Amino acid sequence: MRLSNYLIPTLRDTPKEAQIVSHRYMLRAGMIQQASAGIYSWLPMGYRVLRKIEQIVREEQDAAGAQEVLMPTIQSADLWRESGRYDDYGKEMLRIQDRHERDMLYGPTNEELITDIFRTHVKSYRALPLNLYHIQWKFRDEVRPRFGIMRGREFLMKDAYSFDVDYEGAVRAYNKMFVAYLKTYARMGLRAIPMAADSGPIGGDMSHEFVILAETGESEVYCHKDWLEVDVLSQDIDINGDLQPVVDSFLSRYAATDEKHDPATCPVPEGDLIATRGIEVGHIFYFGTKYSEPLNARVTGPDGKDVPVHSGSYGVGVSRLVGGIIEASHDDRGIIWPESVAPFLVGLVNIKVGDDACTGVCEDLYRGFNNAGVECLYDDRDERTGAKLADMDLIGLPWQVIVGPRGVKNGVVEVKNRRTGETEEMSPEAVLSRFSG
Amino acid sequence: MRLSNYLIPTLRDTPKEAQIVSHRYMLRAGMIQQASAGIYSWLPMGYRVLRKIEQIVREEQDAAGAQEVLMPTIQSADLWRESGRYDDYGKEMLRIQDRHERDMLYGPTNEELITDIFRTHVKSYRALPLNLYHIQWKFRDEVRPRFGIMRGREFLMKDAYSFDVDYEGAVRAYNKMFVAYLKTYARMGLRAIPMAADSGPIGGDMSHEFVILAETGESEVYCHKDWLEVDVLSQDIDINGDLQPVVDSFLSRYAATDEKHDPATCPVPEGDLIATRGIEVGHIFYFGTKYSEPLNARVTGPDGKDVPVHSGSYGVGVSRLVGGIIEASHDDRGIIWPESVAPFLVGLVNIKVGDDACTGVCEDLYRGFNNAGVECLYDDRDERTGAKLADMDLIGLPWQVIVGPRGVKNGVVEVKNRRTGETEEMSPEAVLSRFSG
Repeated sequence: MRLSNYLIPTLRDTPKEAQIVSHRYMLRAGMIQQASAGIYSWLPMGYRVLRKIEQIVREEQDAAGAQEVLMPTIQSADLWRESGRYDDYGKEMLRIQDRHERDMLYGPTNEELITDIFRTHVKSYRALPLNLYHIQWKFRDEVRPRFGIMRGREFLMKDAYSFDVDYEGAVRAYNKMFVAYLKTYARMGLRAIPMAADSGPIGGDMSHEFVILAETGESEVYCHKDWLEVDVLSQDIDINGDLQPVVDSFLSRYAATDEKHDPATCPVPEGDLIATRGIEVGHIFYFGTKYSEPLNARVTGPDGKDVPVHSGSYGVGVSRLVGGIIEASHDDRGIIWPESVAPFLVGLVNIKVGDDACTGVCEDLYRGFNNAGVECLYDDRDERTGAKLADMDLIGLPWQVIVGPRGVKNGVVEVKNRRTGETEEMSPEAVLSRFSG
Repeated sequence: MRLSNYLIPTLRDTPKEAQIVSHRYMLRAGMIQQASAGIYSWLPMGYRVLRKIEQIVREEQDAAGAQEVLMPTIQSADLWRESGRYDDYGKEMLRIQDRHERDMLYGPTNEELITDIFRTHVKSYRALPLNLYHIQWKFRDEVRPRFGIMRGREFLMKDAYSFDVDYEGAVRAYNKMFVAYLKTYARMGLRAIPMAADSGPIGGDMSHEFVILAETGESEVYCHKDWLEVDVLSQDIDINGDLQPVVDSFLSRYAATDEKHDPATCPVPEGDLIATRGIEVGHIFYFGTKYSEPLNARVTGPDGKDVPVHSGSYGVGVSRLVGGIIEASHDDRGIIWPESVAPFLVGLVNIKVGDDACTGVCEDLYRGFNNAGVECLYDDRDERTGAKLADMDLIGLPWQVIVGPRGVKNGVVEVKNRRTGETEEMSPEAVLSRFSG
């Protein structure tokens, strides 16, 4: 993509309304624009990151055997009256009347609707286990939306819903999602720690929040320092095997949110306990028959008797993760994207746009990257060198390839690693083969 | 995907509420489920088709140089008051009050919001031409939603918005979208005919509807019979070249909607004129400064003077296309998916689930397809042969691989082309290499 023709409206100054670093950098890097309070438009580069995160979430859900569906954003109030949650949910639910004065709402979550789909089509335990998920926009009418997309009103969430004939099956489903979540976050370069948590308005008696540690986090969290050594991706876990020992092993390390942490009973010696702040990026619940009972979602079991299905729900805050990753990965010059979610792998900077030799090398590299399928953002703008390099650091692509007249005269360009700051001079051919590999 | 474990709730009987073939087949094939009037959930197979269509639309927009963004579904009423359309839009607009009693709405279209993004960031003609698109859910509160997702209330639309410094630039942008649309539909196996059309509530003085011919269509359309011979994909059109001659050549063949057709002035001899019904699957508009004037979206031109930008908008009915393709491609046994949008390329049917030889061949084929990246739906259910074959015809995958005991004894399986009905016996190895090629 040529930057001269691409909408990345970077800002020099920090917008006043932005209180946390991810919000500041997302605005300054031209990733988002507020449409109204707590509601954002995603500009081209922001949307690329959002889609990469969404795709990682999707792949890990698919790998865990969940099936993707899509439920609508607007729901009828009737189902929520059936479950008893219509009045419970309070003012956070955006309530709507359509032209025929029917009560509708913008879904804040989908337990009712998915249970309705389930009860319509599934009648026998033989179709179980079943896990259905979707990645869809939700709306929660927060009193004071803030922190940009981290606490917006319209937000993108992945929510999965598992259905099993009994408690044991439901625990297996829960464990699958538990492991899928650890892998999902690890692939985004995040260390997300599962913490015992309250289940809130979703209900249920088993629940874990997945929390990334960050000083700007919204709540206090506590965990054993061993958590900082855990490397999920190096472990060879069979998602279709018996996951109980795997989950038990993870949970053997202490971690709890403020609500669940009690210094009096905490088993971790003081020197081993980390007390810091965290950002919730996912939440999983087992709630048994809380929805299947009132909504009458029953299946015939192996013994021929009807039983209400046992369910759980499993959420990932997809849009919130964009902010979460920035909170976890930045410096004072800007964002540092992990490669897996970077909007582009390489930023190509032409230091001297008027210079034929520089432009020739850049055009060759740009064509080479495109032909090799390497995602490249090419800064071909006629701007000051300092401004171009500052923009490139701000938007935080993992690699920068900087083409200037001095280097070109010697047949080399500079390759810079955004995270370490390390630079290396290489021939353009070597650059191409390095990134095309 | 193993059908025994996959949510495709096919129906034997035709649901009473379905009046047109696409609605009937989408319900019978278990692709969608009504959530409330005119609002649908997409079940796994339906969602796969929706995503394939979306991806073709995206690729052709990207190829035409449009940049993908994402605007929210919920908008503030303020911008619509600025453009003057808040009162114009009538009851089709879903109006909402949030908890602070601010007037909001569920976007039926996005001219205002995209113009606000544009005016915030773009100040100079040097950033033009610019075309921004998104693929997002819209809501139009139809009085009588019907025909399933063909005329639903919540629907997925791709809408692009072009910005140019003058009329000539805007025509170039219009022509690019015109050609991109022809390619988009052709890739889905559709013949979509651009027809002179009224511009309705979007406004403007140049507009074409893209219409596919189908007797179940919502409106009368007229076109020269030469349109039936047009093959867009065989033409080598450079989307970045001068497209005026290309567009003129397409438009030299007569085509008009009922509103624009006048028998008295129609230039086509009676014998050459096709009068039939059509389904609108896209609509493009040039509306000049209709929104940039009231919303004050101005850029500095080459001469240093400020001018309002010239714009157009370009819509594709993404969810509606699922129905449109079925209307255009089916028989009395079910859907016939074009390969480019098929939920799976191959349906693998095990005729005798209890038979070890059959099951062995099926499992090998299934593993082989998966390893080769061939999308395969494997009917491993223990059901009657007739029901399984009827289901396979109903859901309409392009190819069926049928494995029965007689064939297996002779070392062959049957490969059936769903469209032509032609069958061929082949060894399992030959099947694998044919589809993996």
